[in-house]
Amino acid sequence: MLIVMNSDATEADVWRVVERIESLGFKAHPMPGSNRTAIGLTGNQGAVDPAPFAELPGVAECVRVTKPYKLVGRDLKHDKTVIRVGEAEIGDEFAMIAGVCAVESREQTMLTAEVVAGMGCKWFRGGAFKPRTSPYAFQGLAEEGLRILSDARDAFGLRIVTEAVDEPALDLVEKYADVIQIGTRNMQNFSLLRRAGQARKPVLLKRGMSSTLEEFLLAAEYIMSEGNYKVILCERGVRTFGDHSRFTPDLSVIPAAQRLSHLPIVFDPSHSTGNRETVIPMARAAVAAGADGLLVDIHPYPERALCDGPQALLFDMFRDLVAQARAIAEIVKRHSEAHIIGATVK
Amino acid sequence: MLIVMNSDATEADVWRVVERIESLGFKAHPMPGSNRTAIGLTGNQGAVDPAPFAELPGVAECVRVTKPYKLVGRDLKHDKTVIRVGEAEIGDEFAMIAGVCAVESREQTMLTAEVVAGMGCKWFRGGAFKPRTSPYAFQGLAEEGLRILSDARDAFGLRIVTEAVDEPALDLVEKYADVIQIGTRNMQNFSLLRRAGQARKPVLLKRGMSSTLEEFLLAAEYIMSEGNYKVILCERGVRTFGDHSRFTPDLSVIPAAQRLSHLPIVFDPSHSTGNRETVIPMARAAVAAGADGLLVDIHPYPERALCDGPQALLFDMFRDLVAQARAIAEIVKRHSEAHIIGATVK
Amino acid sequence: MLIVMNSDATEADVWRVVERIESLGFKAHPMPGSNRTAIGLTGNQGAVDPAPFAELPGVAECVRVTKPYKLVGRDLKHDKTVIRVGEAEIGDEFAMIAGVCAVESREQTMLTAEVVAGMGCKWFRGGAFKPRTSPYAFQGLAEEGLRILSDARDAFGLRIVTEAVDEPALDLVEKYADVIQIGTRNMQNFSLLRRAGQARKPVLLKRGMSSTLEEFLLAAEYIMSEGNYKVILCERGVRTFGDHSRFTPDLSVIPAAQRLSHLPIVFDPSHSTGNRETVIPMARAAVAAGADGLLVDIHPYPERALCDGPQALLFDMFRDLVAQARAIAEIVKRHSEAHIIGATVK
Amino acid sequence: MLIVMNSDATEADVWRVVERIESLGFKAHPMPGSNRTAIGLTGNQGAVDPAPFAELPGVAECVRVTKPYKLVGRDLKHDKTVIRVGEAEIGDEFAMIAGVCAVESREQTMLTAEVVAGMGCKWFRGGAFKPRTSPYAFQGLAEEGLRILSDARDAFGLRIVTEAVDEPALDLVEKYADVIQIGTRNMQNFSLLRRAGQARKPVLLKRGMSSTLEEFLLAAEYIMSEGNYKVILCERGVRTFGDHSRFTPDLSVIPAAQRLSHLPIVFDPSHSTGNRETVIPMARAAVAAGADGLLVDIHPYPERALCDGPQALLFDMFRDLVAQARAIAEIVKRHSEAHIIGATVK
Repeated sequence: MLIVMNSDATEADVWRVVERIESLGFKAHPMPGSNRTAIGLTGNQGAVDPAPFAELPGVAECVRVTKPYKLVGRDLKHDKTVIRVGEAEIGDEFAMIAGVCAVESREQTMLTAEVVAGMGCKWFRGGAFKPRTSPYAFQGLAEEGLRILSDARDAFGLRIVTEAVDEPALDLVEKYADVIQIGTRNMQNFSLLRRAGQARKPVLLKRGMSSTLEEFLLAAEYIMSEGNYKVILCERGVRTFGDHSRFTPDLSVIPAAQRLSHLPIVFDPSHSTGNRETVIPMARAAVAAGADGLLVDIHPYPERALCDGPQALLFDMFRDLVAQARAIAEIVKRHSEAHIIGATVK
Repeated sequence: MLIVMNSDATEADVWRVVERIESLGFKAHPMPGSNRTAIGLTGNQGAVDPAPFAELPGVAECVRVTKPYKLVGRDLKHDKTVIRVGEAEIGDEFAMIAGVCAVESREQTMLTAEVVAGMGCKWFRGGAFKPRTSPYAFQGLAEEGLRILSDARDAFGLRIVTEAVDEPALDLVEKYADVIQIGTRNMQNFSLLRRAGQARKPVLLKRGMSSTLEEFLLAAEYIMSEGNYKVILCERGVRTFGDHSRFTPDLSVIPAAQRLSHLPIVFDPSHSTGNRETVIPMARAAVAAGADGLLVDIHPYPERALCDGPQALLFDMFRDLVAQARAIAEIVKRHSEAHIIGATVK
Repeated sequence: MLIVMNSDATEADVWRVVERIESLGFKAHPMPGSNRTAIGLTGNQGAVDPAPFAELPGVAECVRVTKPYKLVGRDLKHDKTVIRVGEAEIGDEFAMIAGVCAVESREQTMLTAEVVAGMGCKWFRGGAFKPRTSPYAFQGLAEEGLRILSDARDAFGLRIVTEAVDEPALDLVEKYADVIQIGTRNMQNFSLLRRAGQARKPVLLKRGMSSTLEEFLLAAEYIMSEGNYKVILCERGVRTFGDHSRFTPDLSVIPAAQRLSHLPIVFDPSHSTGNRETVIPMARAAVAAGADGLLVDIHPYPERALCDGPQALLFDMFRDLVAQARAIAEIVKRHSEAHIIGATVK
Repeated sequence: MLIVMNSDATEADVWRVVERIESLGFKAHPMPGSNRTAIGLTGNQGAVDPAPFAELPGVAECVRVTKPYKLVGRDLKHDKTVIRVGEAEIGDEFAMIAGVCAVESREQTMLTAEVVAGMGCKWFRGGAFKPRTSPYAFQGLAEEGLRILSDARDAFGLRIVTEAVDEPALDLVEKYADVIQIGTRNMQNFSLLRRAGQARKPVLLKRGMSSTLEEFLLAAEYIMSEGNYKVILCERGVRTFGDHSRFTPDLSVIPAAQRLSHLPIVFDPSHSTGNRETVIPMARAAVAAGADGLLVDIHPYPERALCDGPQALLFDMFRDLVAQARAIAEIVKRHSEAHIIGATVK
């Protein structure tokens, strides 16, 4: 259920509702919006009687939620969520999250971070824990990799996004990094999602490689249901019969997710295509589709990369991509009002 | 086999090679390029002896083709193919092919054509023959529809793209229209492809809904192997497990096809998404991915459309889309040189 | 609409309804069942008024059909359809349709037909027209191939199933063969389906490689709507991300189709797997799933086959398969009554 | 690398090789076969020099493994693996693993276990930890559920298969149950796979819903690389465009996996189809395809089930299925020798 407050409800009104929810054994999730606050109620089995809430001061209405998700939906929170870490943000301006697929060495990481920061980007990605299909493949530098990433942050003022592959890794990622990435293979690792929901840092959740949009949103709901509302969705390609791209980038999920959810959504052109030559056109395409950002692999010398070298952009290609992406994002933004008006016609 | 001529070979040299090929019982396909002409040889079973050709004047080299297709490939013709009908073109500047899904009436068609022409677009699409999943659904106005389209051409100076569903329809389309469309369900209707290859007009070939890129290019090869080299590829969404879009637009096929083939490729955001709200972001995305054009449904009053009303853009949405698409195409073009340089690094 | 007759309605009663339907400009499709006849009405746009039929003698009830298909459905005809050509039948006992992928020579065809007949099988398959992905691949012996097949029929008393790839081929197939096969790439070649619907011989319709069950049934409906009610469905594998089989055999479509439709359904393990070693287990599996028959490639010397050699069974493997398939079909049949009872619990 | 011993090598010879492998910092995996033992070597980066092993007594040859997996492959161990727990086994005779989807109550579990044991089945399945797409859905009785399962084992002499969703659950499952199930959503939860590899009990590994066969085998390799060689593969349907079944059962993976791997493979018709009516034909089909067993949901009163009721068989349907499955398994077994001979022709 969703309890929508009047626009002039006080903070005390909100907390009175939260207390009433919790006294009945449920969980309360207040979500302030630009005009008014809505409070999600979860933990119920079946329908909840609205009577105990409807009578409280400041309550405008009690809405039954018929979708399987509640906290991720536009019903609860109409305004788009903007994730902020220091000066870096995702959900408002176009965000470029660039870096190395795997942290391989201090030198490789620092060289790359310098280029990223030099383009005025605020976010840096790099894998310290690598989930690999084979038990015999390079699995990442682990805590040593996190320390290198942390140094890159200090050296260049970048915010760090890095993957946690299990609970022990998440403990470390939470300590060293700024955004906790949950990978595509763990999108339905529900224990890890719950643990991420208990973290104090934003979570970037990659879509499973054959997950429906509803499953994707419900995975985000797992995180949010534990009280962490700072979730960034990430499309990274789906599995189809096609063989001209490692995965088939599903850009149509970007406008679809934005219609249903207030969460920002970014796109990873590197892992979805697996091929440097396709990264740039698909990255541009995602920005044009309205993505809130990109997650891009670059590498100082891709031919020596320990992991996914063929998809890493060279530095010059990356600089060119940033320029193109910003120009396209500007066009999309300028026309977005017209689009929103158009979108209301059904 | 591919016979590449010297850059200073004369037309007589070319024709001498063509004659030699035909005298041996094969088919010759001369393809002039910006620097020199290459001549494709088809109709062989197994390898062809290059000796009878290598000795002819003007021949630079004889190349064995190892890909399953020959005429569609960049090996035969490096320069991109540009399709021209009067002042309209596809393959050079961004091309907008807009119109009605089905021709329903003279009024609906004329109203729409006026808007399309008013935006400075040169192409008009409209279905007179509609391939329908159910035998009981509206199947189009047939020749009456073609006459209306022809009148729209005369009234607004537009070039007409319309589908031929079988050989008798193709005879009529060839008579009335400017570009013959082959639909997704007929992508491997090899008899129809051969017939289209004998036509004197360009062919717009839609990708099958679960066709690989190789199958798509081989379908184009069927058309070209009959001597019609004016083929436009069209991506229109593929079938996946996803349920948030009618089909999943596979934009990654755009750069992939352009790498392998000299043929232009356009995108149909209307039939792939089936949903007006997703058409605009996906159309923008395709342009950003480098598509040579778009094939878009619009309708004066979509709620009364006989076919696929929910995907038709309103006139104002269409005007906004044209502006956005042109602005993005401009950015892509400006950066394409940098991209081509980047793409050569492997 | 569906007009269901009383169980004691006379033939005259049935014909009176048919006449009334046709006098109103619709098409009538009488379908005799074991207890009573139902008459399908097609050709209507929107709902039909039942009044003119309800009053006629012998009419039990007029039922509105809400599914998109009418003639293929169990609503119109509850009893399973059995296709009979001479002594050969499909839909009652398990049917083995074996033969060569492509008719390559008289000797290859006759050697194979002898083995098929020697196992007591009644049907023979063999392609005279081969739809090939590449325009440069072997396309079949055409009419010469049909003549060889016809001779095999005369020599061994087999009934011939062979593909028609277009209207001219269908004219020939209708003349020489017993069952007209429509291939997977033509499942939505609606003109060809209509032509097959005008033929006087049964049609074996292969499922498109990414067709839904509803689209598959509607393709059969195209044939039936022209008056040819003798349709055999054929599953032949669908396209998925999987790479251990050429296509992924979708055996779950067998019970699903049988629940919705009265038409028999067979399975092609050869084209779906593309691999001799997988043909036998998948063929057995289809019989166990309840398939009404199999469509199997065999070859006297597969290493020399012009088309799809790796999937052709050797003669000894084929003999073993027939024995296994019959034994499994016997078990399925014995238990089918218990299954039918179980299936009614929802 | 693979070190193959002579057929008369002693146990001391084997252990000498193991010691040599470990002294070089690698891991040794001895796999006794019916004729001779092979020893897998893992933990290497790049190629290993065979010299230090080739000279040891009893060593027949050192084989480089070119497939990405080693321990799961037929190269290392040609004989099929049979998993035994007490009198129960999988990999030799057809194994029926039946039970409840979720343990809901002692009564429901005991009633079901009695029916399973009454049919002479040796294995019982039941979920105490349920991975659910929504955070608000019933998640299982946890340890209380495991206690009920344990009581069912004691009461009816059944062996228990139950899922572990994370490491803490795995600790409990290892304590209470006989076989640890890893679910489809965790097939690439590599930390959990490693933990399962350290367990002393067999592991039943479900295929991911869009996993390739190679990824599936590599997930099993993760378990085996930790020293637990008792792995049972389980196909449970894959994701496709199809909508007539919850997932598309991919039975072709059964013979394909058996060709590449010595591990047994079973099939879950309940979760793959989601529909009671389709369970029986698909279960029969899997047995006919050569599956080593089935994993089937039954329920005393499915209409009241807390989870996946529509797929649970009624008791009578289950009894009928067991009879059919056994009869088909008998036919497959009888013909398997002929099939093995046939399979050697390539």
